Amino acid sequence: MRKILIIGAGKSTAQLIKYLSHKSQEQQLHLVVADRDLQQATKACASHPNTEAVELNIDDAAARQQFILEAHLVISMLPAALHIEVARDCLKFGKNMVTASYISDAMLSLDAEVKAKGLIFMNEIGLDPGIDHMSAMQVIDRIRDAGGRMLLFESFCGGLVAPQSDTNLWNYKFTWNPRNVVLAGQGGAAEFIQEGTYKYIPYHRLFRRTEFLDVEGYGRFEAYANRNSLKYRSIYGLDAILTLYRGTIRRVGFSRAWNLFVQLGMTDDSYTLQDTETMSYREFTNLFLPYSPTDSVELKLRHGLKIDQDDLLWDKLLELDLFNDHKQLGLKNASPAQCLQRILEDQWTLAPEDKDMIVMYHKFGYELNGEKKQIDATMVLEGENQTYTAMAKTVGLPVGIAALKILDGKITKPGVQLPIDREVYEPILDELTQYGIHFKEYEVPYLGYNPHHQ
Amino acid sequence: MRKILIIGAGKSTAQLIKYLSHKSQEQQLHLVVADRDLQQATKACASHPNTEAVELNIDDAAARQQFILEAHLVISMLPAALHIEVARDCLKFGKNMVTASYISDAMLSLDAEVKAKGLIFMNEIGLDPGIDHMSAMQVIDRIRDAGGRMLLFESFCGGLVAPQSDTNLWNYKFTWNPRNVVLAGQGGAAEFIQEGTYKYIPYHRLFRRTEFLDVEGYGRFEAYANRNSLKYRSIYGLDAILTLYRGTIRRVGFSRAWNLFVQLGMTDDSYTLQDTETMSYREFTNLFLPYSPTDSVELKLRHGLKIDQDDLLWDKLLELDLFNDHKQLGLKNASPAQCLQRILEDQWTLAPEDKDMIVMYHKFGYELNGEKKQIDATMVLEGENQTYTAMAKTVGLPVGIAALKILDGKITKPGVQLPIDREVYEPILDELTQYGIHFKEYEVPYLGYNPHHQ
Repeated sequence: MRKILIIGAGKSTAQLIKYLSHKSQEQQLHLVVADRDLQQATKACASHPNTEAVELNIDDAAARQQFILEAHLVISMLPAALHIEVARDCLKFGKNMVTASYISDAMLSLDAEVKAKGLIFMNEIGLDPGIDHMSAMQVIDRIRDAGGRMLLFESFCGGLVAPQSDTNLWNYKFTWNPRNVVLAGQGGAAEFIQEGTYKYIPYHRLFRRTEFLDVEGYGRFEAYANRNSLKYRSIYGLDAILTLYRGTIRRVGFSRAWNLFVQLGMTDDSYTLQDTETMSYREFTNLFLPYSPTDSVELKLRHGLKIDQDDLLWDKLLELDLFNDHKQLGLKNASPAQCLQRILEDQWTLAPEDKDMIVMYHKFGYELNGEKKQIDATMVLEGENQTYTAMAKTVGLPVGIAALKILDGKITKPGVQLPIDREVYEPILDELTQYGIHFKEYEVPYLGYNPHHQ
Repeated sequence: MRKILIIGAGKSTAQLIKYLSHKSQEQQLHLVVADRDLQQATKACASHPNTEAVELNIDDAAARQQFILEAHLVISMLPAALHIEVARDCLKFGKNMVTASYISDAMLSLDAEVKAKGLIFMNEIGLDPGIDHMSAMQVIDRIRDAGGRMLLFESFCGGLVAPQSDTNLWNYKFTWNPRNVVLAGQGGAAEFIQEGTYKYIPYHRLFRRTEFLDVEGYGRFEAYANRNSLKYRSIYGLDAILTLYRGTIRRVGFSRAWNLFVQLGMTDDSYTLQDTETMSYREFTNLFLPYSPTDSVELKLRHGLKIDQDDLLWDKLLELDLFNDHKQLGLKNASPAQCLQRILEDQWTLAPEDKDMIVMYHKFGYELNGEKKQIDATMVLEGENQTYTAMAKTVGLPVGIAALKILDGKITKPGVQLPIDREVYEPILDELTQYGIHFKEYEVPYLGYNPHHQ
């Protein structure tokens, strides 16, 4: 039996454990699922064969090292900041490792030693980062193999609610960490390149600089720019590319409405408010509007943000009960962002029968034999239920597949890495199609941003 | 002879040295003016009698301590962060000290020891902070002495250009550190209280939430909120006050135009841009606008910020040459804020004959014998020239007067303090009137923010 140690048994591990357990008979696997909370680990193992739930406090070095020593491969599903201790142990005991998180500087600093020991530390192999890298590199490599030159790469991803569960005016519910959704885009200007020109969008303009995306069978979406689109320029080998843009997908109209919260200052997480425990939703809204002894909070907001009488934006605010004088926040010393999250959770929490949906959209512009061309590739996956969500599948499956391929010696290149090499993305993308995760490609006219100058 | 050591001979010391030198004969003073740059110190001493310029590297502890040891009182005109080493030496050698800077936590931590030694460390005794504290406390104490109860305190201050030098469309020139002007308002939401309700304005809305102020003989001004209006609530004894607001004064229209820079993201100092050395003003402006192969930077800006064809805002932008394709920034690895400052300095630098102007405006609302009343107090001071600016006078004179009063034993309360006590503000405000720094008071109807609910 080959022992795989999975550390962390949170929501996103359900599909990972199901996948590996399903393969366990044929592949001779034994899964050890370790969590600080034994009940959580036991629940994650459910009735899956060849799984074993164990209790592990990650700060207990002796216990942690014993589990790692006994494993053939380690998957860390811990919060990103906690991978490094696991990684150091894996290095010490010569174990391969897989995570779905961004490569931290600390992780990267182990690269030389990891290579020296011939180990594989595979990271960024979930959805985003993960499937985005693999699906992009597959097309980019194909274009290059044919002699093409990349001109444009745009990539968009969004965690949304499936059409049958899309029941509110925002066409949105929280399908992952609500806090990250409320804080999205903060921390600096969004930076990207269009036609060789650097462009910068400050946070308070981000949600008004969206673009539309149409996905076959699903209609129209919109996307706002991610903070750092240039992060993978060198890694993808796109140093000479003219247009490089990454964005986040929402249903049309979400961003224009979300911008109201940004404008009011409700997404600010940098300071705490007074008396938030007993503050009503209405009082919270009023904090960000000028004082008036007579004018209503409603009219002050309409006036302050210039919302016309017949603008459907308004119904989105009403749906959230933003002017309710009875509902209280019930949070101690909360920041505006925490209060807003509390209000949104009333309406945007998934109901038990709700399903989520992942949408990914790539645009590849290139020149081949003097001709400009474009491929658009889209992937949509709906969740099965609240355990096997689209998010859990698109994170858990690539992690599980990568783990098996490493264990089987099919992935061989050593080092601290992300999945941009052919030997990694080809078998994984191939197997993902069996689980409904596949990209549809469309040859479209290359428009770039210079339609009249071709 | 009584030796006063002045450390730091920057622009704002001109008036201070002139004042003390002028008193030196009668008061038996000898001024030692120390600066890292001996030329700077020599220039500051000019032909003023009883002054001595010396070279001092503030990091040279032995030299610094020797100068301090020989002085009867020390005035630190260094940048705020450098006062603390001087303060520790003053404590060690039992010397009184004066600064015009905000009391830092490090400075405050010396309070018990300073008191134990019977020393006076007087801080925040320039213009703002300084004259604002003194002039406010004088009226507040008078209202309280008469049995009144404070309802409202609003305080505004601005460093502007004098009417005869007010020659551009912005009605503004840099009369002090341009960098601070570009970054003004950043670092968190502006917080204040109106009629007992907390209010918060995010940075990107700050310059659209201004209010007007009329000053006799000078016409109309506007003010935007400072970041922390509540800082002095307890220090002024205003814990129960309903309205507390502090703001920065500009000429009408400045803020609405400045808001364009904020909206575009040009005031951001948190990241650096690519290729700023050879970047034209026009290219800089275009960084913050969507890409287009054909549309002009001008039209993209008008459209993006919704500037009508007949809006005078536009001329303000033209005046700054924001669309000039030939002028280059000439700055290496600059942030947007640094680039904007560079562009503004072309137009907003004081000409040799230009004069500056300080405007301060207080509103005191109170209840006396069941009646609601209000006093408005205004102070305007125009500079003489570019040496004896209004800024240098309003900073240097209170510092100099305080130093003499401490030396003469007229100010006696020991400790690390700011000028809110009667024994401090009364003689100083009194003497300041001789130099044209005085407040005009007006009894006005109390409107508060509840005009219909009185």
